[in-house]
Amino acid sequence: MDLTEKTKTEKYLYKGKIINLRLDEIELPNGEPATREVVEHPGGVCIAALTNDNHLLFVNQYRYPYKKELLEVPAGKLSPGEDPLECAKRELLEETGAAAEEFRFIGQLYPSPGYCDEIIHMYFAKVNTEGDPQPDNDEFLEVIKIPLEKAVDMVLSGTLADAKTQAAVLKVFTLKNRGQL
Amino acid sequence: MDLTEKTKTEKYLYKGKIINLRLDEIELPNGEPATREVVEHPGGVCIAALTNDNHLLFVNQYRYPYKKELLEVPAGKLSPGEDPLECAKRELLEETGAAAEEFRFIGQLYPSPGYCDEIIHMYFAKVNTEGDPQPDNDEFLEVIKIPLEKAVDMVLSGTLADAKTQAAVLKVFTLKNRGQL
Repeated sequence: MDLTEKTKTEKYLYKGKIINLRLDEIELPNGEPATREVVEHPGGVCIAALTNDNHLLFVNQYRYPYKKELLEVPAGKLSPGEDPLECAKRELLEETGAAAEEFRFIGQLYPSPGYCDEIIHMYFAKVNTEGDPQPDNDEFLEVIKIPLEKAVDMVLSGTLADAKTQAAVLKVFTLKNRGQL
Repeated sequence: MDLTEKTKTEKYLYKGKIINLRLDEIELPNGEPATREVVEHPGGVCIAALTNDNHLLFVNQYRYPYKKELLEVPAGKLSPGEDPLECAKRELLEETGAAAEEFRFIGQLYPSPGYCDEIIHMYFAKVNTEGDPQPDNDEFLEVIKIPLEKAVDMVLSGTLADAKTQAAVLKVFTLKNRGQL
């Protein structure tokens, strides 16, 4: 079965700082017309950073859409043309002060495929040296270390709600259990 | 440290079919002004549906923002005022034709906390009877059964990129390994 939705027209409703919004007219597989709302995002990275004593590094920050603080793995947006691995090294250092001797790509993550084109490049990092965060001027966050097993409990109990964080913690745990990390 | 970002003004730039877009003026923790782009979404559900022969049910559908087909766990948007559990039962039946004897809540998922307020309510379902999908008129999808262990491999190898799908598969796998499912 061909499931392709054909683009008829693309229209920008908003071009912003982080996201753009498009409203496209399309043709469904049965030939009927429909519209699609598309949030454009430049993409980003996240890092599951494991210390020598088997703790994961998290950042606590205020997430305005939910009007509360959330605990997440370090992450950030790609600058135009930036290599995802370089972005991951930069964000880990900026947000946590940690440097890693080993970075491994552990897959892409599509946060909201129904209406957004964002791709998050996920990395595992074996932390070599810990240090002080170097956040941007408009970035306010706290670094928190949590034992890997406890982080898994927090994902399963619902304490860690962020999608990339749930996926990153459980990927690292499963890969380690299989002897693949 | 108080990380709260205070709302000064809220302005709607777009009110649409699935999402709205707001541009708010806020005050950072240091008192400086800033703006926040917020995508409003009604929230939704996803279901990790396990059959008696230890297969998970997936739906293959065209995801317009990525211009390609994606394999995901069954999912759907909440109707206004709808109970998430009722939504999960309805979506599982509509998208896969399956009914479940047991539904268990396995936590919330925040897909994109930087700019979107969506909450996905995640469920595990023990499938009782399989049947034929009953999709909406404008919904085109294929149902695919995959052994749980193989689905885990597909998450770890990057074949399953959708965020809720990665989290759902690894949660079920980890809970089962712990004897908690």
